[in-house]
Amino acid sequence: MSTEQLLSLFFDAATLKRVPRSGWLLRNVPQVESVADHSYSMAVMTLALADALNASGALAEPLDAGRALTISVLHDLAESRLTDLPGPAMRFLDPQAKSQAESAAIAEILRSLPSAEAFQALWHEFEDATSPEGRLVCDTDKLEMMVQCLRYERAGVRGLDEFWASVDRYQWHYSLCAELYQALKALRPS
Amino acid sequence: MSTEQLLSLFFDAATLKRVPRSGWLLRNVPQVESVADHSYSMAVMTLALADALNASGALAEPLDAGRALTISVLHDLAESRLTDLPGPAMRFLDPQAKSQAESAAIAEILRSLPSAEAFQALWHEFEDATSPEGRLVCDTDKLEMMVQCLRYERAGVRGLDEFWASVDRYQWHYSLCAELYQALKALRPS
Amino acid sequence: MSTEQLLSLFFDAATLKRVPRSGWLLRNVPQVESVADHSYSMAVMTLALADALNASGALAEPLDAGRALTISVLHDLAESRLTDLPGPAMRFLDPQAKSQAESAAIAEILRSLPSAEAFQALWHEFEDATSPEGRLVCDTDKLEMMVQCLRYERAGVRGLDEFWASVDRYQWHYSLCAELYQALKALRPS
Amino acid sequence: MSTEQLLSLFFDAATLKRVPRSGWLLRNVPQVESVADHSYSMAVMTLALADALNASGALAEPLDAGRALTISVLHDLAESRLTDLPGPAMRFLDPQAKSQAESAAIAEILRSLPSAEAFQALWHEFEDATSPEGRLVCDTDKLEMMVQCLRYERAGVRGLDEFWASVDRYQWHYSLCAELYQALKALRPS
Amino acid sequence: MSTEQLLSLFFDAATLKRVPRSGWLLRNVPQVESVADHSYSMAVMTLALADALNASGALAEPLDAGRALTISVLHDLAESRLTDLPGPAMRFLDPQAKSQAESAAIAEILRSLPSAEAFQALWHEFEDATSPEGRLVCDTDKLEMMVQCLRYERAGVRGLDEFWASVDRYQWHYSLCAELYQALKALRPS
Amino acid sequence: MSTEQLLSLFFDAATLKRVPRSGWLLRNVPQVESVADHSYSMAVMTLALADALNASGALAEPLDAGRALTISVLHDLAESRLTDLPGPAMRFLDPQAKSQAESAAIAEILRSLPSAEAFQALWHEFEDATSPEGRLVCDTDKLEMMVQCLRYERAGVRGLDEFWASVDRYQWHYSLCAELYQALKALRPS
Repeated sequence: MSTEQLLSLFFDAATLKRVPRSGWLLRNVPQVESVADHSYSMAVMTLALADALNASGALAEPLDAGRALTISVLHDLAESRLTDLPGPAMRFLDPQAKSQAESAAIAEILRSLPSAEAFQALWHEFEDATSPEGRLVCDTDKLEMMVQCLRYERAGVRGLDEFWASVDRYQWHYSLCAELYQALKALRPS
Repeated sequence: MSTEQLLSLFFDAATLKRVPRSGWLLRNVPQVESVADHSYSMAVMTLALADALNASGALAEPLDAGRALTISVLHDLAESRLTDLPGPAMRFLDPQAKSQAESAAIAEILRSLPSAEAFQALWHEFEDATSPEGRLVCDTDKLEMMVQCLRYERAGVRGLDEFWASVDRYQWHYSLCAELYQALKALRPS
Repeated sequence: MSTEQLLSLFFDAATLKRVPRSGWLLRNVPQVESVADHSYSMAVMTLALADALNASGALAEPLDAGRALTISVLHDLAESRLTDLPGPAMRFLDPQAKSQAESAAIAEILRSLPSAEAFQALWHEFEDATSPEGRLVCDTDKLEMMVQCLRYERAGVRGLDEFWASVDRYQWHYSLCAELYQALKALRPS
Repeated sequence: MSTEQLLSLFFDAATLKRVPRSGWLLRNVPQVESVADHSYSMAVMTLALADALNASGALAEPLDAGRALTISVLHDLAESRLTDLPGPAMRFLDPQAKSQAESAAIAEILRSLPSAEAFQALWHEFEDATSPEGRLVCDTDKLEMMVQCLRYERAGVRGLDEFWASVDRYQWHYSLCAELYQALKALRPS
Repeated sequence: MSTEQLLSLFFDAATLKRVPRSGWLLRNVPQVESVADHSYSMAVMTLALADALNASGALAEPLDAGRALTISVLHDLAESRLTDLPGPAMRFLDPQAKSQAESAAIAEILRSLPSAEAFQALWHEFEDATSPEGRLVCDTDKLEMMVQCLRYERAGVRGLDEFWASVDRYQWHYSLCAELYQALKALRPS
Repeated sequence: MSTEQLLSLFFDAATLKRVPRSGWLLRNVPQVESVADHSYSMAVMTLALADALNASGALAEPLDAGRALTISVLHDLAESRLTDLPGPAMRFLDPQAKSQAESAAIAEILRSLPSAEAFQALWHEFEDATSPEGRLVCDTDKLEMMVQCLRYERAGVRGLDEFWASVDRYQWHYSLCAELYQALKALRPS
């Protein structure tokens, strides 16, 4: 793999610093985080959650924290090419089309890495929730969104009820994450 | 049509104030215009271009300026639901899928207006370049992008060559627009 | 008219992307829309209102939607030269001086267009509320301000009561607009 | 004077944190300083210039640094009510009207202070360049604008030549300021 | 002192236009003022407070307003080199280390001025609250923070209670400032 | 460990979304990335570099990619409490004081995690460059800074030469990183 190919991947990662999280944007939140902001916060959370779950004794087999971390770092990388399509847009696009576009984009972004195929398989563990680590990242994705939602609400933003309502309907894979969500919700300013 | 339906349409229009033009965003332009900014600037340009073309004596039939203006105001309205998908994303999405999503979104946004069908037909005149007014808005869309590109370059932004290169390949419908593009290009800072 | 003159007009239009709406600025609203944002949103609203009014059967004569749209696109164009003077500033400036400055600025901006005089007459239909279409744009100007005000309040901004109080005293030209204003007001978060 | 009157003055001062310097805005500078930013930078400069001038032995009588500082702090305070009218707007407004509006605004802002009249007289020393300290602040106002201009240019902003051209024509009151301007100019990136 | 040295000081002052007040930043306030914004607002307040106190007849000796103004302009100047360290950071840094760093930075910034030593002594009158004027600037520093805090709260920001709680514990040097603080507090939106 | 303790860690991570990278800020870069942005970009780069290095056959022992990723995610976490102290500030602060403050802050942030001690040890592997993975993150920290620097320069920012000059003097731990740096440098716009 050439230095040029590595640099191209680096530029994709850096692009996510400028891609806004569109859900906040469409609700007129004044200061919108980037996809990189969200992904970094998720990475820290993934690390902590894997550590807490492994120490809890509740799992049959320990989670591979490095694997979970890798998945969290990769899970939104395709948005450097596709931007962050907002939820409501999905009513107009075939959901399969979106998933295929993301899969194709992530494949292209990673293709020159020696472990490209392994990384892409990890991305699918998240997308399809097919491994314990992939499922942890699914939960972390929702949880981080609500950490940020709470931060906005604490800073005075209103009109974000539908985010809570949508996550109320989400099926958590790990009860620890479900508990943390309830604890977050209890912190909402009245 | 209810006041609620009208207000819903108003909120779609206002949403475009916060949707960034993704092409600039992905090239790291520091101050990115909104889709509403772009559409407003296009509306003024459409008005001026229709007036200039009609006065030029070059057209067999005069353009209907009100119709052209209406098309320019409607042409990106679907982005209140879909956001502004960047050009490179199109390599990963079926182009037909995008056009269908936009058509479905614009239909839903406008559906409660008495003239909903007429407005949707006008939108297609732009999308499919099937009327003189629709074609004028196609040209104006490119021209406005390059006015903004020049403004960024004059303010010091670099790295936008590919925008000029892509518009160099565009087939202008009106020679006046082609001339204006050349005049813009001549103003680029060295 | 030369390409240079047309480009000069295009640059005026594009300048409005950066002129902030000063009313919000002075109340410390965190994310202030541009004059172009406001004008675009007004254009969509004007289109919808003209359509709804014409379909309602309430008017003796139908509104000319293209004319109304043109007025909405032109009504704040002088602010590319003058910026958006805030309401409180008017206490210190002769109101006639402001109106004359706007009239002179709009004349200069449009002067090279074949229909410059007609456009300037349209601008006066708004400024002086002397035609049904001009009066519709007056109403739309207030209504759009309150759509944005509500959007800010829904996103958590407070301290905007005086905007509602000032529009409470406004004499609407069209009862549909008065009704829409009441409907907007009913949506204010408590 | 009541606490309410003092707080009202404090709010005027704080408002200038959000009033953008319109000259930069209209040239599409991406990150526009506030009037408060400009005035603070001027205050530091005024302090240093008065100190340097008094130590230089070139003045018949020493400058009153506290007086000069007071003038620099007051000189743009009226913009909390009027915002920063851009230079080009002056072509459309009677210059006398602007000066009278500023005088009336500054009078109203300061009216409840015990020394209101003295402060207003200081403001006129700047506006009319009628005292050594007032003239120093005139020079500092230009010099600070060019310090910021250079900062923008060093950070990559282009298209600001007309600022340099306009200050080239300015008659400096103090030769030290003229020298500093030349030194600034010599630092422009090519 | 050379022009180069003066310009270097000017660049330090201008740098404060971009240094954010970190207290607001860490609480996720959407639109964060600069240190220059804060210092300018303090300068106006210092001028007004010195005037009001001197007129009140409550002081044994009148305050030197020019001296107080100078202190307010200098008090945060070291942050052009050190940025604005947030309060919580102080738990991890030796407070003496911070004060020494500031003292060294301000000395370096001012060193080429003829009155460098006098200015540095004035800075210490604030830092150590060792003169009536230095103590007035201490009070103004807190008061200005709460003016801005109130402005944020009026604009909808929440989660700033700890700022009020911390200033509740502050020992005011001037009863007028204590009164103004109570008056500000009474204006908080519920 | 309680949910409260986990949430507290999550809030620290999220805080980094708002902490600006101060080096860019002080050079007046218009759009400053967050520490979270930087750390995310570094995480992707770390993943790619570990993969490339392991596949290159140049290492005696393969790098533990999960460990390297963990280090990159933790390396700037203390800045949620301390903010990003700019390089020039170090001239005024005892470097040991800074390192101790960071160590104390990271210890406090992580203390409730089951593996708190292990994580803190990993942080020291970076801080003290005492493991192959820690050294890779040192290199990635510099490399990511220059990726962003190049992105700014490509977008038109100037005045960043000193960043390149400072990294020119950096001793790379991995020759691949040194090569990538040279390749980046070759891409600088003239």
